[in-house]
Formats: sequence, C-alpha cells, structure tokens
Amino acid sequence: MDGTILIVDDVATNRIVFKVKLGAASYHPLMATGGLECLRMARDARPDLILLDLMLPDLSGVEVIRRLRADPVTCDIPVIVVSALTSLTDRLAALEAGADDVFSKPWDDQLLMARVRNLLRSRQDAADLAGGRDAMLYGMAEPVSDFGHPGVLALVTDRTDSALQMRRDLGPLLRDRIVIMGHADALLDVEPGRPSADIYIIETDGKPGERGLRLLSDLRSRLATRHAGICILSSRTALAEAGAEATMAFDLGADAVIDSRMTSVEMALRLRMILRRKQRADRTREQLQDGLRLAMLDPLTGLFNRRFAMPKLTELAGRAVAAGRSFAVMIADLDRFKSVNDRYGHATGDAVLIEVARRFGQNLRGSDLLARVGGEEFLIAVPDAGLEEAQAIAVRLCQQIEARAIEAPGGEQITVTVSIGLAIGCAGTVDTDAAGLASSVTEEADQALLLSKTAGRNTVTIARSAA
Amino acid sequence: MDGTILIVDDVATNRIVFKVKLGAASYHPLMATGGLECLRMARDARPDLILLDLMLPDLSGVEVIRRLRADPVTCDIPVIVVSALTSLTDRLAALEAGADDVFSKPWDDQLLMARVRNLLRSRQDAADLAGGRDAMLYGMAEPVSDFGHPGVLALVTDRTDSALQMRRDLGPLLRDRIVIMGHADALLDVEPGRPSADIYIIETDGKPGERGLRLLSDLRSRLATRHAGICILSSRTALAEAGAEATMAFDLGADAVIDSRMTSVEMALRLRMILRRKQRADRTREQLQDGLRLAMLDPLTGLFNRRFAMPKLTELAGRAVAAGRSFAVMIADLDRFKSVNDRYGHATGDAVLIEVARRFGQNLRGSDLLARVGGEEFLIAVPDAGLEEAQAIAVRLCQQIEARAIEAPGGEQITVTVSIGLAIGCAGTVDTDAAGLASSVTEEADQALLLSKTAGRNTVTIARSAA
Repeated sequence: MDGTILIVDDVATNRIVFKVKLGAASYHPLMATGGLECLRMARDARPDLILLDLMLPDLSGVEVIRRLRADPVTCDIPVIVVSALTSLTDRLAALEAGADDVFSKPWDDQLLMARVRNLLRSRQDAADLAGGRDAMLYGMAEPVSDFGHPGVLALVTDRTDSALQMRRDLGPLLRDRIVIMGHADALLDVEPGRPSADIYIIETDGKPGERGLRLLSDLRSRLATRHAGICILSSRTALAEAGAEATMAFDLGADAVIDSRMTSVEMALRLRMILRRKQRADRTREQLQDGLRLAMLDPLTGLFNRRFAMPKLTELAGRAVAAGRSFAVMIADLDRFKSVNDRYGHATGDAVLIEVARRFGQNLRGSDLLARVGGEEFLIAVPDAGLEEAQAIAVRLCQQIEARAIEAPGGEQITVTVSIGLAIGCAGTVDTDAAGLASSVTEEADQALLLSKTAGRNTVTIARSAA
Repeated sequence: MDGTILIVDDVATNRIVFKVKLGAASYHPLMATGGLECLRMARDARPDLILLDLMLPDLSGVEVIRRLRADPVTCDIPVIVVSALTSLTDRLAALEAGADDVFSKPWDDQLLMARVRNLLRSRQDAADLAGGRDAMLYGMAEPVSDFGHPGVLALVTDRTDSALQMRRDLGPLLRDRIVIMGHADALLDVEPGRPSADIYIIETDGKPGERGLRLLSDLRSRLATRHAGICILSSRTALAEAGAEATMAFDLGADAVIDSRMTSVEMALRLRMILRRKQRADRTREQLQDGLRLAMLDPLTGLFNRRFAMPKLTELAGRAVAAGRSFAVMIADLDRFKSVNDRYGHATGDAVLIEVARRFGQNLRGSDLLARVGGEEFLIAVPDAGLEEAQAIAVRLCQQIEARAIEAPGGEQITVTVSIGLAIGCAGTVDTDAAGLASSVTEEADQALLLSKTAGRNTVTIARSAA
C-alpha cells in the first residue's frame, strides 16, 4: 500500500494525535501499542515508514530498531524516533541501532512531515532503481556485508578553520577519508563520471539565495553525484529559521540535516549510516545492471542474444536513416554443424561455437553489432559500410573460421566453415521506418545465406538488391 | 560526458557569456554557430542539454528543434530556447516543435540555471529508470507513437471560479479530461496505486509556508504520483518573487512553471508535451520491468529460472529463520526423460516439460516457489511447512504427473513420472545464514532425490535429516 505509516506508542493520546495528522496528509496510519506488536505488524503489513516512541512497555525502542534491522523483511523500513525521552545517550543508542532520525519533544511538525516525505521518496527511488522488489533479490544470495569499504567524505565549506577542527574531531571516529573542499570543487569529477566524494557535508551560510541548498540541487542533477550521500550542516540558531531550512533541505533531497553543535559522536554515527545506505544502493544498482545485461546476452558465447539483436539493429538502422548513410547486415551460419554435435558431442559443439564467436569478435569493430541469433547462426551488422567494404569483411570472416582448426576440450582438431548472406540497408531505398528497414535487410541477408548454402557453402553471397 | 551543454548562437559575445557562466558552474560547454553545426554536434557529441538561439544564419531555430526531435539519436535531448527574438508566435512555434522551455531577454540567470539543473535531473532519472541506455533499446523495436492515449489533468486549486474558467479555455485545445480538485484530493488514490491524475497543475498562493510547493514535494514522495507530470501555476506578478518561486519549484522537481497570464494555447502546448514525456517514461519503465522479468524466467515453461531460484529460496529461508518457522524444499526430476526426447523428438519433450510445469503450478500455492533448475529438474519450496504437510504435497505432485497421459502436439499420449527428494529447513538446526541454510537444504533434497531414483523412481524420498 502507498504511504502506510506505522505509529508505535503506548500512550493512546499520542497515537491518536499522529493518526489524525497523518490521515489529514492522506497517509494510511496503522497503530501498535508495544514493541512486539510493532515487530509483528512490520513483518505482516510492511509499512513504508515507522514512527517509533522509545518508551514502550515490553521492549525498549532501541531493541525494537535492532530487531527490525536484523530481519531481512523489515531491515529497509525507515524508522523515525519520536519521543519525549531522548537524552543524548538515547539518541546515540537509537542511531547506533539504525534509526534514520530522532525527533525530540517539542518537535516542528512541518519538519517532521518533510522528513517523512524525504524518507518515503528515497525509499521509492531505491525501489525504482532496483527495478521492483523481485529484481532486488538478485543480490540476496550474496552475503550483505554491513561494513563496506571506507569512503571519501567531503566537507564543503569556505571556512577552512572550522572544517579543519571538524576533521580532527571526526577523523578518529570514522574509517573514511575526510577531505575539505569549496563549493565549486564539489562539482568537479575526479575523472569523467567519478565523483569527488561519496558523501558531501555542505555547510550552509544562511544568506538569501543560499548557496548550500543550491549546491544540493546541483549535486542531485549531475550524473556523477546524483546518488551521493548529502548532508546539510546548519549553524542556524533561530529555531524557526533552522526548521524552514531543514524542511527545504529534506524536500530537495538531503539525506540528513546536521546541527553544527551536534557532538562528533552523533555526527559520525549519522555519516556512517548514510554511507552504508549509499553503498547498498550502489550495489543494488550494479546488480540491476548485471541482471539486465544477462537478459540481453547469450550465456554460451557472451554475445547479444536474438531477442536483443533486433532492437539493437533497429537502432543502428535508425541512425543510418537519419544520417543518410548505408549499413551492412550479414547472417553467418556454421556449415554442417549438426555433424560436429553428432560426432563429438554437445560439449565440443559448444566449444566450437565459443571459438567462432571469438574469431568473429576479433575481426569486427566495437561499433559493429554481433549477436548469436540461432543455434549456429550469427547476425552481424556494420554501420556506415558500403557494399565493397562489407564484402571484404564478410570474406575475411569466412577465411578466419576456415584458416585454423579449432581445438576442442578433448584435444580434437576440428575444422569448420561458415556461409554468409550479405545485404545492404540504405536510407530512402524503402519507404518504411527503421524497424521495417532492419527486418527487410535481415530478410534479404537470410535469403542470400540460402544461396551460399546451395552454392556449396563456405562462401559469401550478396543479396540481389545490393549486388 | 556529464553535464555537457551545447550553446547555439551566431553572435560570438553571446556564446562567450554562456560559456563563462556554464564553465563557472562546472558544466562542459560546447559551441555551435549555426543550425547545421548544432545538428551535427548534437549527433556526434550527444550533449545533455542544448541552449538554442532562434535567430540563426542557416536554419531557423524552430526548424533545428524539429530536426532534433525527428532524429532518434537526438530526440530526447532537452532544449531550452534562449533568445532575444521571442514574439508570442515564436514561443508557440518553438514549443510546438518540441522545445522544453523558452527564455526571452532579459532572463533571470538563477532561474535559467535552476531550469538547467531541473532538466538534467529529469534526464538522469529517465536513464536510471531505463536501467541504462542499452536497456532502453528493448522498446525500440516497437513503434513509438507520439500521440498516446488521452490523460487526466488535475487543476489543484481552492479558487473554483478561476479553475472553471481555465477548464473552459483549455478544454477545446486538449483531448484530455480536466478535473478540478483541492490540495487534499490530489493525494488520494482513485484505487490503491492508481493516482488521481496524470498531470497536476498546482496553483500557488504565494503565502509563506507555500502549500503548493509542499504539495509538489508530497506528490513526488508518493508511490502512485511520483512519476506524474507536475506544473506549478503561478500568479505572482513581482518579477523577483516569481523568479524565486519558479527556481524553487524546478529544484523540487516541477516539470513546468506556468504563468497564469499565459495564453491558453501556450498552456495547452506545454501540457501536451509534459503528458507525452510522462507517457513515454511510463512505457520505458514497463519495458524495463518486462526485461527483468524475462531475465528471471525460463522461456520454455515460464517458471523462474535456475539463476533466480536460489536468491528467491534464500529470501524464503531468511523469512523462515526470522520467524522461527520451518520450510520444505523438493527437487523433482522427470524419470527417464531422455527416452522421451529420443523417441518423440525435442518438440514433444518440450511439450511434456510445459505440461509438467503446469500441473506442478496447479497443485501449489502462490506463495510457494516453483522453478525449473535444470533440463528436466524442478525446485519447489513451500514456506511454513512441516514434514507431514510437505510429504503430502510431494506425494500429490507425483500422483498428478502419473495420473493422466500428456498429449503431445503430434497427438501421442505420453505417460511420465517424477522422482522427488524432500528436505526440511529449520531455523536453528544449522549455525549459518539464510543463504547457507538454503543451499544445505537443497543439497539434502538433491541427495534424497538420488535415493528416489535408485529406489525405482516415481516416488518421494525424505532426506535423512528430516525423517
């Protein structure tokens, strides 16, 4: 369900106050009166966020957070502690256990709601990036290490003296490298696509046209830094102003707002958690990419598979049409491949396919398209190629396969040949779109391949339209 | 490259002014002096955004936009028109051709930079959602219709009279349904997960603690509305205030800021473009989901594939451990399946596998896990099951396969049987994590399967640890 928020408090009036407020904001409030009930409901109802009091009759709030974090079903649910009882010790214990934020009485309601929006938005972003819940499972077989590699934390400020002091204070509490930089440096990539830091801690100056919040928006709009952790370090003392700034920071996508008078221990705890979340999200994104890559690839040869070859060819055709250039399509088929399988077995047949794919790849450019589109059939597309050039490439591919025997795992030396059909796609020759052009050229190459087969194999035939 | 912005202007001083400003903001400026050069550079350098003057020596700026939009390589690059010459006719022509925004002299530099950030951020979001550029190709084979289905546009306002007038004005210019709602209604789902509109046009009131911008943030944080189109409708007349509000709206993720004094024709053009972009992004997301689903499924039977079965089983084991419950794992293997393939051919063998998968599926619950993990081998996991229940399920599966002959496509009636190995996973029985538990239970089920095979097949064997 969308926007389900679990309120955990043993005092009925507190629960009701939250319920009314959340209901008015169109959230779906659920209520638990104790820690065990909270844990049960968190598993069963899977709320999107938990508002947790620390003083509970059965379990301590800190213990509840620990158990939520230990359970794979609930470990990612954001938890905001809202409690009258928050000594410094309590705050630290809650953060250490894995709370996302701690609000002590009396809190700023607007700010609390902004934090709710902010955490819900991050959670949806993560789900989107993971391509839905099921895709996230890809990574579940791999052990989730909670202690990732050390990161780089950037203190973004123009006041070097206070930054140096902060680095001295935080240094012993963190394993990460802490660097100090100005606003402009934060946007510079170390190298293309590599950001200058994992977490940016941006000091705000409280002046109108606030540079710090603008930098936050800027970092979120850049490819290299959009998934970085971002903390706003505020030194505003007036409560209302600080609240308004923090509200805006959360809505702009900050991961935390830190008061510069906070203890170093609390800062370190918060930074550690942000880094951990960021590294987890990075890994999820990588796994998504891996999953997608696998969906596109033929597992045997590592080439693009049939399903992916046609859209890829359509893209190539679309570019050719737009640029008014031609492109070549070849269908290459191993000759009498069934006899290899029959005589030597499938393992040897597979080894032959892998080696043929490798030789094709070695004789094509990175911009060419190479896919395995059938058992022993390959599709090759060469952009910006005319007939002569394409024919030379096709002939070379034939020769490279025939030239050297392939050594099978069992030691057998197997010589195979390929037949190739070649067709040329030209913008304007057919009155159709890129997809239509791609499939008609492939069809022509297929027909030409048949002619190669009937002409005795191990040869290149040019489609009639191109000859 | 990250943050590459192409400046197109035939006046050298204009280019230089932009170059300095963009460079200072850590973007990578490129420059073109005319329309043809712009088109060439857009294809070759693939900038992330184009700042385009309308008065060019060779092509009109409007024609440049048209050509950019017609080329699949450049059609998604955001274009901001920045031009001295912008009569109402020019603005409309530029928007109609597909410009994302039009800034006329003199413009607010802060606002222009906010719009740049805003468009870059949307672009990266789209790329993220598409799982990278390659994944987007999945959809390219399907024709991209530029005219999607009519949408629902919500005018969010408390001033019903002006909203009614606006609906009367916009109605004849759009195919979409226009509804009027208050702020609270915007957050209500029509049904779970279904938003109340495709585009929200939010009227701001200009009061402190602005409700309109808060609603914008709120919509972006909700699952149902986070990908909706959102326009801010501003009636501020003071230039500086309007600029500050628009800057903030763009940084919070608005898709457009519309001045309430704008002509209805211009509003309609902008709304149409936002709807088109939104519908395209929706389709890309769906395609990504499809791609991922395919990566998880066995194409023959539609069951989960081997690669996906283990993480899925690990998740199931993790839940069982956390809840202190047991679960059952079965490995089911078709008996003497090779003889089916040898005698009837692979097509018939495939038909048998499909029917076996179907019968298994019919006799399991939705919460059970069913995967094809080998040629004729299936993995079944049943959560919350003890030995007795699991054994009853396994025996039933055996019976269901043996009970009726399978009709092959050629009309042959083929009777097959399965052997099953069954093991039970219990929290606490092994001192390991969920992944370790999942693989050890699978291993036990595998061993038990071997015993079923040696015991004469078509039978269920319980692993020693569970018996």
